[in-house]
Order: sequence, then C-alpha cells, then structure tokens
Amino acid sequence: MKLLRVGPVGAERPALLDESGTLRDLSGIVPDIDGALLADETALDRVRTAAAAGDLPALDAAGLRTGAPLGRIGKVVCIGLNYHDHARETGAPIPAEPIVFMKAADTVVGPDDTVLVPRGSVKTDWEVELAVVIGRTARYLETDEQALAAVAGYTIAHDVSEREFQIERGGQWDKGKNCETFNPLGPWLVTADEVPDPQALGLRLWVNGELKQDGTTAEQIFPVAEVVRYLSQFMTLHPGDVINTGTPAGVAMGRPDPKPYLRAGDVVELEIDGLGHQRQELKDA
Amino acid sequence: MKLLRVGPVGAERPALLDESGTLRDLSGIVPDIDGALLADETALDRVRTAAAAGDLPALDAAGLRTGAPLGRIGKVVCIGLNYHDHARETGAPIPAEPIVFMKAADTVVGPDDTVLVPRGSVKTDWEVELAVVIGRTARYLETDEQALAAVAGYTIAHDVSEREFQIERGGQWDKGKNCETFNPLGPWLVTADEVPDPQALGLRLWVNGELKQDGTTAEQIFPVAEVVRYLSQFMTLHPGDVINTGTPAGVAMGRPDPKPYLRAGDVVELEIDGLGHQRQELKDA
Repeated sequence: MKLLRVGPVGAERPALLDESGTLRDLSGIVPDIDGALLADETALDRVRTAAAAGDLPALDAAGLRTGAPLGRIGKVVCIGLNYHDHARETGAPIPAEPIVFMKAADTVVGPDDTVLVPRGSVKTDWEVELAVVIGRTARYLETDEQALAAVAGYTIAHDVSEREFQIERGGQWDKGKNCETFNPLGPWLVTADEVPDPQALGLRLWVNGELKQDGTTAEQIFPVAEVVRYLSQFMTLHPGDVINTGTPAGVAMGRPDPKPYLRAGDVVELEIDGLGHQRQELKDA
Repeated sequence: MKLLRVGPVGAERPALLDESGTLRDLSGIVPDIDGALLADETALDRVRTAAAAGDLPALDAAGLRTGAPLGRIGKVVCIGLNYHDHARETGAPIPAEPIVFMKAADTVVGPDDTVLVPRGSVKTDWEVELAVVIGRTARYLETDEQALAAVAGYTIAHDVSEREFQIERGGQWDKGKNCETFNPLGPWLVTADEVPDPQALGLRLWVNGELKQDGTTAEQIFPVAEVVRYLSQFMTLHPGDVINTGTPAGVAMGRPDPKPYLRAGDVVELEIDGLGHQRQELKDA
C-alpha cells in the first residue's frame, strides 16, 4: 500500500493512493498514519480490506498539500557515509561499522514543503536517502530476518545538511543536521510488502533540473537489514521511528570548488524507484 | 513551583510539590506537564492560583513512582565538554563554541527508574547535568534575555554514556548516548522563577555512596543563556524540548585505570541544589 497524509500543516488526514492512482480518504477508519497504526496488524488489515473492497471515499488531490507520510515520529536515526561512491567522493575511509547520528523529529516536513537555508549558512547541501519506517519494536535483534520484520515500509528522506555546521563547528554532525525544515519526508509510506528488494532501488536528485545524484541502494555499504540489526544493539527502535540510510555520491561537498551549495530560489527534486517524487523550493530562513 | 508526574510508566499524572512538602494532584486542572502546558501562561496561572488557594487535593506519596517531570518531550539536545574541570579531566581542549549532540526523547525515564547497562558494554559512565526545559519557541535569538525568557524551568538529567560506543565506534557521540534508559530526568521541573541564578548551582553524584562528582554550574564554559541563544541559531527549540547542559569533572572516564565504569548492582545518586534527588539501580539489559 501507498499510505500518505494530506492537508494543512498539523492537520493532515490519513490517505491511501490506490492502484489506479486515485487518492482515498482513510480518516473514517484510522485516526492517522503513525507508529500506533503500523504496530497494529488488525488496523492495517482493516485498511487493506477497505481498499480492496473499493469502500474508501475518493479525495480530490487538486490543490491538496502532501504532508510527511508519518505522524508522531519518535526519532530519526541517520547513517553516515553508507554508500561506497559517497564515501569516496568525500575522501573518507569506508567505515568499518555504521556511523550514527540523529535528527530531531521536528525537522521533518512534507515532501514538497519549503526548505529554509539557515541564517549565516554558506554550505547547505542536498542528500537523497532511502528512509526506513519502523513498525515493530527492535531491541538486540540477532538476524537479518528479524530486522526486516521490524520494517513497516519505506519512503524518501531529503537529509538536508549544512556542511560548515556539521564538520567545521566542533565535529559532532548533529549541529548541521537539525536546522528547521531539514528533513522533507514522503510522499508515500510504501509498505514493505511492495518493496521486495530494498537493495535494488535507484535514487536520483536534481537541482534546478540538473541531475546531481544518480545512485542505487545496491551501493550501500551496510544494507537495510544490517543497519536495523546493528542499531538495535545500541538503542531500542520503536514503531514510528525513521532511519535515514545514507546518501549516494553527488552531493555539493563532493564537487570541485566553487562547490554549488544551495541558495534561496533553488529547486531540489528527489526520486526513488517506486517511492515517488519530492520537490522543494529553497528560501532564506 | 515544583511540578512533577507520578504514577506507573506511561500513565503518570501531573502533580505539584507544595511549599510544605505535600504532594498535590494537578490532574483536575491540567491534563499533563508538557510543552503545551509550559507554553500556556493561562494554564500555568491556573495552577499557581489553585496552589496558593490550597484548592488542590493531596496525594499519598507512599509507594508512588515518580516519572520524568515532562511528558511528550520533543527533543533532548546535549552540550558536550561544557565544564572547565570536565574538559581538563578528559584531556580535551576547551571548546571554542558549544559541542552539540542529541539524545532521543525515548531514552528518558523517571529519576529513580532502573538504568540498563547495554549488552556488550564495558564503559557505561555517569554524568550529572543541569537540564533546561524550554517553554517558548526559540529561533535565532539575539540576547541572553530572550534566551532566559524561553526557559520554563530546570531539572536534573543523568546523561548516562557508554564511552566505547560514544568515542571508539565511529566518532559520532550519539551511538553511546541513546541506549534505552540512558536519560533519567527529574524528580521536579522547578519553574525558572524559583531558580534566580542557574550559574550558581551545586551538582553532586554518588556511586554506591561514594561522592564522584561535586561541581558547580559556575564552572560552565557556556552558561545556560548562551547555550539557549547559541542553539537557536542552528535549530528551533520548541516548548517541551530539553537541553542537557553538560557535566562537571568526576566521571569514570576521567579516572586512572582501571576506570570504575558502572556495572549491574551499582547504585547512582544525583543531586542539584534546589532541584531534588535521583537514585537509580543499574541492571543488565
């Protein structure tokens, strides 16, 4: 299923994009798309049954904002340098184990919402990423099978990053990762049953129409199952948590000088096979 | 006021500790102690008025668990190496500006709840910290006055830290800061009007009855007002966010070998002048 949330900021309603491309209202059968829903097989089955029966009212998509496809996000855990090609372009060694940092849930915005260049920023950069949405509590998992069973689905994350704040202002990356609007998410939460191989997805990102990132999750150093299993040794993952699994090559930081960092007026578009499309305009904070 | 939350995990009720030391039930006049309450001057005034009028029913504290004094925490932002004496003991240079890392809100537990030593951990360490609770949205603040006006109150945080995970497993500290139960918080949220000088508070921590940390917030490199103002340049702080402002000298990592890291069975107690007392027993995860 393609689950999403549509409507004004803070008042999104749950919806489903059906196989014919029609937007369907879920607000009559579930209160929201969130961790509680994803952990509740009965509620998910109710959605599946209603969708299959054609019982869901259609919504007019025209003019309707798309929010992040998940409400009440617990935490956003991020993996750094998780693509062979991206590690090479940054000049960093291939990590021996996943590098972990965090984004606050309040950085999450809708897939087409405005992204703000922080005041004083001269190195705002883009990163298209496969985001994993957790559906079952994950704690000290032992196998890849257990890890994938904890995954409710997938979506696109734009892990917007301010490189000066991230790298040159003390060395802990979180400072450059938590600026407001720095995590567009969506448009859809695609349930895991519709993503048979998360390691075979093309990811693309354009700036002002020019293709900048054109990668594949096959290049991930630590695949999704290993990332979830690994993280569960250090923290408990809860339904409604999100993992940004890293970005492929092609970010501004990896380019020759003068590096083409983002500025107000730029338009970024992102796409992952089967997971939809994002489009953000940059503005000054 | 001393605000707190008492009752079973996940079902805490809001309460107040009055000037006579009697626990008073707030559940009749506010739904919870959280960011929404702290941002609502009218609701806070209702609590103040009811407390002054003696209108609040007493609660029997005997056998009642104390939860974290804040529900629905947004994010926990942490400042690293923020005490002159702690920076010296770790051998780190005095930071030129605050070092920022993050804990997920789901690491927060009550002040006397069990703390779990992660599986595989041999370097679980203690850190007593002054925690700042945000009551007003803080975004690009310019002055110390604006920063302090955004502070709703103060409490004690135990910023439990696994040093191997934090430092030797990739270098981003979050990996050693986000283990389950790693942020005991409380017992009270003491409103800012009752903490006239946050830079004059003694902080103490004992392990198995032995005093290990005995510091003062006067040693903070970046005082509370500067921390809040600084953070607001990089992220938006929202009501219900928490800032752990760093720990003074005396952690296990700063001791000669063999360093006395925490193990199951150890008991840690923490205290900050005017903010109460915490006590946790360590168990294996």
